[in-house]
This record gives sequence, C-alpha cells and structure tokens, in this order.
Amino acid sequence: MLKQEINELLTETGAGTPMGELFRQYWIPALLAEELPENDSPPVRVKLLSERLIAFRDSQGHYGLIDEFCAHRGVSLWFGNVYDGGLRCSYHGWKYNVTGQCVDVPSEPPGSRLCSKIKLKSYPLVKVGGILWTYMGVPESQPELPQFEFVRVPPEQCHTSKRWQESNWLQALEGGIDSSHVSWLHSDGLKNDPLFKGAQGNKYNVSDMRPFFEVAQADAGLFIGARRNAEEDHYYWRITPWVMPSFTLIPPRGDHPVHGHFWVPIDDANCWVFTWDYHSTRPLTEGELQAMKDGHGVHNEYEPGTWRPLQNKDNDYLMDREAQRRGDTFSGVRGIAMQDASLQESMGPIVDRTQEKLVSTDAGIIQARKQLENAVKELRDQGTTPPGVNPEHHKVRSAAVVLPKDQPFIEGASDALTVIPGVKHASV
Amino acid sequence: MLKQEINELLTETGAGTPMGELFRQYWIPALLAEELPENDSPPVRVKLLSERLIAFRDSQGHYGLIDEFCAHRGVSLWFGNVYDGGLRCSYHGWKYNVTGQCVDVPSEPPGSRLCSKIKLKSYPLVKVGGILWTYMGVPESQPELPQFEFVRVPPEQCHTSKRWQESNWLQALEGGIDSSHVSWLHSDGLKNDPLFKGAQGNKYNVSDMRPFFEVAQADAGLFIGARRNAEEDHYYWRITPWVMPSFTLIPPRGDHPVHGHFWVPIDDANCWVFTWDYHSTRPLTEGELQAMKDGHGVHNEYEPGTWRPLQNKDNDYLMDREAQRRGDTFSGVRGIAMQDASLQESMGPIVDRTQEKLVSTDAGIIQARKQLENAVKELRDQGTTPPGVNPEHHKVRSAAVVLPKDQPFIEGASDALTVIPGVKHASV
Amino acid sequence: MLKQEINELLTETGAGTPMGELFRQYWIPALLAEELPENDSPPVRVKLLSERLIAFRDSQGHYGLIDEFCAHRGVSLWFGNVYDGGLRCSYHGWKYNVTGQCVDVPSEPPGSRLCSKIKLKSYPLVKVGGILWTYMGVPESQPELPQFEFVRVPPEQCHTSKRWQESNWLQALEGGIDSSHVSWLHSDGLKNDPLFKGAQGNKYNVSDMRPFFEVAQADAGLFIGARRNAEEDHYYWRITPWVMPSFTLIPPRGDHPVHGHFWVPIDDANCWVFTWDYHSTRPLTEGELQAMKDGHGVHNEYEPGTWRPLQNKDNDYLMDREAQRRGDTFSGVRGIAMQDASLQESMGPIVDRTQEKLVSTDAGIIQARKQLENAVKELRDQGTTPPGVNPEHHKVRSAAVVLPKDQPFIEGASDALTVIPGVKHASV
Repeated sequence: MLKQEINELLTETGAGTPMGELFRQYWIPALLAEELPENDSPPVRVKLLSERLIAFRDSQGHYGLIDEFCAHRGVSLWFGNVYDGGLRCSYHGWKYNVTGQCVDVPSEPPGSRLCSKIKLKSYPLVKVGGILWTYMGVPESQPELPQFEFVRVPPEQCHTSKRWQESNWLQALEGGIDSSHVSWLHSDGLKNDPLFKGAQGNKYNVSDMRPFFEVAQADAGLFIGARRNAEEDHYYWRITPWVMPSFTLIPPRGDHPVHGHFWVPIDDANCWVFTWDYHSTRPLTEGELQAMKDGHGVHNEYEPGTWRPLQNKDNDYLMDREAQRRGDTFSGVRGIAMQDASLQESMGPIVDRTQEKLVSTDAGIIQARKQLENAVKELRDQGTTPPGVNPEHHKVRSAAVVLPKDQPFIEGASDALTVIPGVKHASV
Repeated sequence: MLKQEINELLTETGAGTPMGELFRQYWIPALLAEELPENDSPPVRVKLLSERLIAFRDSQGHYGLIDEFCAHRGVSLWFGNVYDGGLRCSYHGWKYNVTGQCVDVPSEPPGSRLCSKIKLKSYPLVKVGGILWTYMGVPESQPELPQFEFVRVPPEQCHTSKRWQESNWLQALEGGIDSSHVSWLHSDGLKNDPLFKGAQGNKYNVSDMRPFFEVAQADAGLFIGARRNAEEDHYYWRITPWVMPSFTLIPPRGDHPVHGHFWVPIDDANCWVFTWDYHSTRPLTEGELQAMKDGHGVHNEYEPGTWRPLQNKDNDYLMDREAQRRGDTFSGVRGIAMQDASLQESMGPIVDRTQEKLVSTDAGIIQARKQLENAVKELRDQGTTPPGVNPEHHKVRSAAVVLPKDQPFIEGASDALTVIPGVKHASV
Repeated sequence: MLKQEINELLTETGAGTPMGELFRQYWIPALLAEELPENDSPPVRVKLLSERLIAFRDSQGHYGLIDEFCAHRGVSLWFGNVYDGGLRCSYHGWKYNVTGQCVDVPSEPPGSRLCSKIKLKSYPLVKVGGILWTYMGVPESQPELPQFEFVRVPPEQCHTSKRWQESNWLQALEGGIDSSHVSWLHSDGLKNDPLFKGAQGNKYNVSDMRPFFEVAQADAGLFIGARRNAEEDHYYWRITPWVMPSFTLIPPRGDHPVHGHFWVPIDDANCWVFTWDYHSTRPLTEGELQAMKDGHGVHNEYEPGTWRPLQNKDNDYLMDREAQRRGDTFSGVRGIAMQDASLQESMGPIVDRTQEKLVSTDAGIIQARKQLENAVKELRDQGTTPPGVNPEHHKVRSAAVVLPKDQPFIEGASDALTVIPGVKHASV
C-alpha cells in the first residue's frame, strides 16, 4: 500500500517530473531496430516519457530521434521524406538532420543563415542488439551504452519484439518481478507453451504451489528468489533479476532461451513492453524463432499493421470461457503475455495503490518501489546518479538452480547471477 | 423546468449523493437471472449507481455481488474462475465467497489467518422472478423482497429482457410515465406491432389525438390517467402506475401481456432498462415469446454479444427516411423501444431541465419529480424511509378501462389498479 | 509566433467570444443546397460556431435554420418530420415553422394560445449559388447577401462540395493563403491532377522553387502575390485573394476552373471546408464535373454517407510509403485536399502558435492574423462593422499573370483582381 503522493511520484514520467528525470538518466529502448530496416527508411512516430518524437535513419545510416513537429508551423514530420542525408517536412520542405538541426529552408534565398538558428529537440538513438536505444537526459551526463547480455550476444542468439500495453509502466514492471502469479495465471504455459514446457524444473513448479520468496539486494536493483521444494534436502530456486529502472529477466527453464522485458513509459497511461528471448551460448533454433513470431512464450500476436496486441481490451482479450471452464487456461485468456497484459490493464490506467493489500509474496514489489522512491528522491534532492546507469550493473542473469536447503540462494547462485560470456546460464 | 441544483439532485446517483442514497434504500434489478444460468457460471460485470461490481453464482447456487476488483492488487475479478464454492482471482488465486469474504490466499502458509481479515464490499443478490435483485444500502435497513406482480406470477407468464441506454436514468423514467407521446412517436406500433395491435381500445387511441391527463397520488408514486373519448357518456382511461424509485407499467391492450420497465442507473450518463411482458392469469404463448425475442413490443434487437441495442447512436438508430416519408414510422426509427431510446439519448447524457417548457400533459412528470425531490430531501434531512421500500407498495397494476364520464378514474378503476392474484388485469 | 491570448482570441468562435462575434457579422456557408434538395426534404443537423442547429426546407420551399432541440423537453428535431409547412418533433408532435416559431402543440385544447409564446432560436437561411448561407448575428445588423462571383455565375459554371476537417478553422484558413507549400506538398498535382495539369504557367512553378512573396492590402483582406521568374524581364505572379473572415481563392491555371474555399468553424476543434470550382465565362465540362465528383482537384472522396473524407486520421490518410518513395506524391498522401488536411490535422486541434517560427514566405499569414485581430478588437471595443460584411468587398478574383519585372503586381493585375462579369479571369 502506498500513499497517493508516492503513487504519483512513481508513476508520472513526463518532462520535469521526478520519476521522469530518473528515466532520463538511462539509455532506454525507443524502438526495434527492425522498424528502421535500411537507410532512408520512412520515419517512425515514437512517444516516450510523454514526449512525441520521430525516429529516422538517414542516407548514411545515422539514427536520429527528434521532435515530432516541424519548427516552422508545427505539422507532424511523420509525413516527411527521408533522403539525401535528412528528413524533409512535406509541408514546405524544411530539412532536418539526425541531430534535429535544420539544414535547409528552401524558401530562403541562397546564402541565408536562417536555418542555422533552427534546431529541434533531439536525442541520441543508437543500435545495440535488436533495439534502438535513446538517452533523453542532458548531454553532459550521457552514460555508456547498455551492456545487457541479450543485446551483446551474437544476433542469431536473440529475438526481440515489442507491444503496446494500455497501462502505466509501473504495474507492468510489477508483473515482471512478481513470480508468485505464475503458478496460477500461467499454469497452462508450463504444460503447453513450446518455449516453456518440458523443462526438468517445471515439475517443482507444479508440485509446490506455495513458493517462499526471498529478496536480495543487487548493485542496481534486486534478485528475487522463489523457493520451492525439490528432492530431499534441496530447494528449487527461480531467481528473477531487476535492474533499475525497468529491466527484468524471467528465470530460465531447461535449455529454453531466457525471456526478458524492458518496461518503458509511453505516457502515464501506456507503456511499451520490449520483449526478448535469448540464449547465452547458442543460436536460437528455427522452431524457437517461429514460435516467438507466432506469439508464443512471452511474445504475442498483433492487430495488423500495429503494435497493439490482437487480443486487447476492446475484444475482452478474446476471452474463452469454455477454455477456462475446461481448465485449458486459468483466466480464459490465451498466451502468457496477454494473460499478464489483460490483468494489468484491468487495474485501470494507474492502479490505486492506496487500496491494495500486499502480502509476504509481494516482498519484491515492495522493495522495488522503495528502491525507486529512494533513487528518485536522491536524484531530485542531491543529484545522485541512480543505480543501473553504470553499464556494469547490466551484467546480470536470471537463474533456475537446485541448492542445498541450508545455502542462501544469493550465495549458492552468485556465479549464476552474473554474465560470464561463453558460459551457459544456469537452468534446470 | 427545474433549477440546475434540483436537476443535479435528481440525476446524480453515485455513492454519497442524495439520490444515490435514495436508490440504496430499495431492492433494484441488477441483472437478468439468465446471465447466471447455472451454478459456477462465469462471473458477470455489473455497474450500478456508478459502482463497478461482479456478480457470480457459486457451486451451491448462492448468488453474490461483490467489488469488481481483487483486494490484493486491484485486478478485475471478471477474469476469475468460479468453482468449488467461490470466485478465484486469476492473478494469484485469491478466493472469495458470495459475501465478498476472502476464503483463501494460496501463497500463505497453512494455518494463516490472513484471509479472514480480507473482505470485499458486497451486496445481497437474490433471484425473484427472472431478475437478480440487489440492495446496496446498509444491512440493518434491508427491506423485504420485491412483490411486483411480474416477478411473482409463474415463470411461464413472464418474459424479461434488458438493454443499455446511453442517457441518465431520469429522462428514461420520464419517458415511461409520459403517455402523451404514444399517439405521435409510437403511432405505427398500435397498427403493426404484434404485441400492441388488434385491441378493441386502440380505436379510442387513434380517434382522439388530444388526450386529457389526470394524475392521482398512489401510496408510493403515482397513477397517471390518460383520458380519451369513448362511446357516449364514457371515457377510455389508460392508467400508468409509477412506483418509486423507477418502476413503471404500460396500460394493457386487449388480451396482450402487460409491458413494464425498471429504470436503473448504471452511472450518471447511462442506465439499464429492464423490460418485461407478463400476463396476470395465463402463460405467454409461443408466438408472443418469439415476438419478444425478435425485439417487438418494448423489447429490442442487440449488437451481438452485448446488451447494446443493434440500433444505437453510432448508426443513427438505423433511421429510415423513406419509411418516415411513407408514414410507416413517424420518426423513421423502427420499434417502440428504440423510438423512445433514440429520442431520450438525443437529449444528451443529462438533459438541461432549466431550458424545458412543460405543458399540461407533463403533469405526471412534474409530480414524479416533486415526489422524488421530497423523498430525497426527507431521507437526507430526517432519515425518512421513502415510499416504495415497503413491498406492499409494489402490488399495483396498470389498467385500460372504459368508465362513465362522471366517475373519477381513481375511483372507477380502484380494483383494477391493485394486484388480485388469479384475477385478470383490466384491459379493453 | 503569437501570444497564447491572441491564439485563443483568434481561434475560439462560440457564442460570446470575440471571434465568434466577428463571424456572426457575416453571411457564412451553412450547408450545401443539395443537402435540402426539395420541399419537405428530411431535416439536416448543422453545427456552426459551436451551436447545434437544424436546417430544413418547408412545403413552400422556405429554408429555416433553428435550434436543434425541441423547446418542450429537449429532444433532437433531427428525428422530426417535415410536412405541411413545418417541422414536427417526433416525440409529442410539436410543430415549428422556418422562423423557429412553434405553430402547433397538439396536446393543447383547440384555441390554446400556448404555442404563440414558444419560439426557438433561428437564423435566416438563404440559397445563393450552390450554398445555403446563414447569418447568425442580431437581426438589425443583417447585411446584404453575398456577392462572391462563384455563387453569382450561372449554376452550370460552378460545382460546390464540402468536407469536415478535424482542426480549428484558423489553421485551415492559413493553409488557404499559404502559396509557398504548393511547390512541395502539391508538386504531384501540377503534373497529374486533371484540374491542375497542362497549364502554360505550370512550367514557372516547377522551374522556380523559391518564389518571392508580396502581400498587398485589399478592401477587406489581402492579395497575396507569389512571384516566380518568367521569360526575360518578366515575372509570373500567382495572386491569392483573402476576404474576411475566411474566403479564399486559388490562382487559376490555364483555362481550368478557379478553385476556392470558405473555412467555417464547426466548433473550436473542427471546421467545414466549403470547396468550389467555377469558371467566370463558360459552363464546366462533363469531364471537369466528373473529376470533381471523383475527388480530384481540391475536392475529395468520402466515407460513405458522411462528409468525412475517406482518407482521415483514423487510417493515416491511407498514407502510401511506396508512392512517397517513388516520388509519386511528396507526403505519401493522395490528393491536394487531403494533403492539406492531413498536415493541418497533424498540428492538433488548435496548433500552439507560441512555438512556431515564421519566415518571410509567411507574410500573408502574419498579416491576415493581424487584420483579424484588429477587426475583432474594433468590433469588441467600438462596435465597428468589420471589412467583408459589405458585399462589394466580395467582388474579387484570383489571377495568374505575367508582368514586366518593374511593375508592382497590385498595379499590373488591378483589373484582373476585380470581378468583371462576362470577362474571363486572367490566367496563364
């Protein structure tokens, strides 16, 4: 349960808000690299942290993320034309480069210096892995590029997608660090999903419906351990890392790729969910890739031509009461991603956290909020750079391990929770 | 014409509003019994008096109406699973019984008393006739169950439906007690509708387009008499009862079943219109039932899978200007129910009653508003239980009778306006 | 760039606003004459200057524009029936004539004088050319009827259409007086549109992409000259007249008909764009008419049964990135009208003019705003009748002429800019 003022502090991310300033300390995913597949691709509208922006890739392959609206009269540059080293507004032909600098006002006489004085707001946009990342803070504080393992493995080892979620980013993130719902909401996935089923560890999931949760501090977030009974004198631990502000990984299963998310505010009532599957040491198989593209695992299907899920609140997520009655799915909604999204969206755009009743299994959520609150306030009051800006903090892994009962997970899995290139992630 | 403050007083029904408190004194229709057809039926979302609720029917057949949102983290229980004596939230499996009491928090250790301290807001939900009724007031004032004749006759004598109307409840009710529009708006219905046409009395309707209205006080509302010339020295009276807060009956025609409505606020801009046809002494025929299901009489067709009429404001109610020009319908809109709904919705969500110009035929509306205002104020200021709470007040009938000119209708029809089980309603 | 208070002053046109009062000094287009094609045609909903109105044409052919809502209980008269000299509300049969006077309340006894005291708000509605014009000001200031040439030529010389634009009227008008965008946004039209292509003057357009703009004061607005190089010692001038408040003409091309617009506020976030093509001295050809009806030139296609363009913001104006890449269209949007509308709508309902960066080619826009501001303030503060009310001010033409370099356009084209009946407009 939060006070309303803390709920607002953590959920509002527009320019000038404390949490908005926190997000503006980090490189965050802006769009998929595949959205700008080649030089001079059409420009793409991107809304991030309540700012309306245009992404484009110029003739030399440089990426830019600039104000959506032309400096001249305010029309959307989405109708613009990318060629010859810039983006030309389709109204009067004003041209901008990837830094937002105006480089041509065609109506001006030759020799005019006018355009040199016109510059749109812009942010760096950099391809790392399958994602174009941006940093929306002040240039002098720009950190080093992300080092998350999923964007550092060879491309054939990772697949990335995104979807639009119609809720505030925080209730989406909270779903990502809440392992305790898996046994209920996603109980079908363990049995049937091609990207989840068949792992040896799944049997512990199914046989122990009352996991115990233990939360450990990390350099820039948390490790959240879900403990279930395994063979005699052993526990089965599933460990979820969270790196500030909103990177999470799902603990692996068998040799399946590892699933992960980055939860990025679009505005206060919507967020982008960036979703990936990667394997630390081997390429994804054709079958795995196809399953991801078909919307299995933590991916989803789409309304044609959009990033909106095919299952959405306007169609009640294609709720199937018969499938629910038969027990094929617990909530009647198909697919792990949409099971989460449907419930998180059902909470309303920003859930009223003054009304909730948290229990012991919510320890991860409670601590994550507290850490966010502290980081926001320290940034606001003392200018402290928050944890997770340093790319060394990105080098974490999720893990699924069986440990002796008397060994604390953070000790027993300490190697498993760190990226060691060339060494496979720990998974049973 | 009303002052704006009285318009607000009568139209706003959220928790804590004076009219909202008035509605919370009564049993009101919450949903159709057919929406929860069997034990463990899927839960149903119901919004009433601006409160979002979930109705369900447990494994023993008990009905419950509880807060839509799980106490834990606020997700909608509509995604929940009804089995084994309760409704389980699909997120973490918290389970509630029909009283809103939490009876299981699966993540808690055996023996935990946590769930005993968690209880959702809940209201009683009781099947009487084809309707599930709720009472949303304080438990200590809960009245006896409804005694309206349409829910007390054997089931084969009544058919009930409902529809969503996109206007405040009061302008819908006002249509229900306004007989003077029938000659114009519904003139086609008298001729063509299988549930209206053919009655002997219809000839008086058609031959006298200028009825005189007389309004008589009832125990808990009004009897509104519309007087038309009949054979020499006689009047044809059509008498509409209104029982507070919002029960109305249409005067009968010949041996047709009697039509009636209950107008229930969803929120201040929407209402549920519960609609029934019942006969006091005989089963409905197959032909009558089929006509009702086909949307004739005061029923309607639906957008598939919803309670929204097929004819609605987004499609201009399928207005047919050619039919209007030919005189097939006076307003171009098909069907008695949608003729009313189209006009009432065209007034806007809450009509501005400071601008209207009421005339003598609006006496019923004027008196009903005054009675509501008095009841609201007496409840608010002195805590007076309003008329209509006592189920004896429910035992009224509508009537269509021919009386000598010198006999006041309320005297001549006094037996006809009272429910006498086994005696047929008075109708010509 | 405008101060926010001036932006509001110029864009808000509801009753009682200063700009709203300015618009209420003029005859303005209310609807197309074809929308009321015959006596007793069905009534038509019209929203103008934020007022909801009903237009109808009675049995004698008189036009009326009255309050949309019945005086009685406030239902929309759009459901009404036009016959026998008036419009009858379909609820209780109240009847109104074209002046808004109530002429029958059927429920009243014969001889009742009630209806004589009931009168709805009404405005005159007069057919001039293919348009029904209204004047929404006080009766004593009603000016003489419009004298614009396009409504005064024989009907076979003019074709008129309208469309709904989802933006404030001012950013639509500003597009109409901004010739500088033609070379970019509409570059395809000069080459391909049947109502633009083939004129001798087009070659100057294409060869000189950097026109110089000169703005001259007119009696009731502006003449905006766009100067391009022509043969030695000559300039090609395209001259756009603007008559207050929002009449504009596009300069002609060859023997094509002349295109023009009237931009009329629906409310502050929407406007009607009335659009015509007329020829000063000859009937339009079959081919020209067909092209207009097919949405070429400055006309457009429609969502069936509506005045909303087929290409609209919900479908991204059917943006065709491949056509844009090939250079078939500069913005990817098809058609001159929708090229303008798409960009103007992309600015948002009311663009933030405090953020714009105007340049020399925006001189026309700057002066038009200043003139509007002055007229609004003089009307508000001194009651001064604004320019353009006098129908003599309507007798302007657009022109496309080649003049010697040393001749000011306003001098060299002075005859060309005035309507001379029977003399063809000046066009190369």
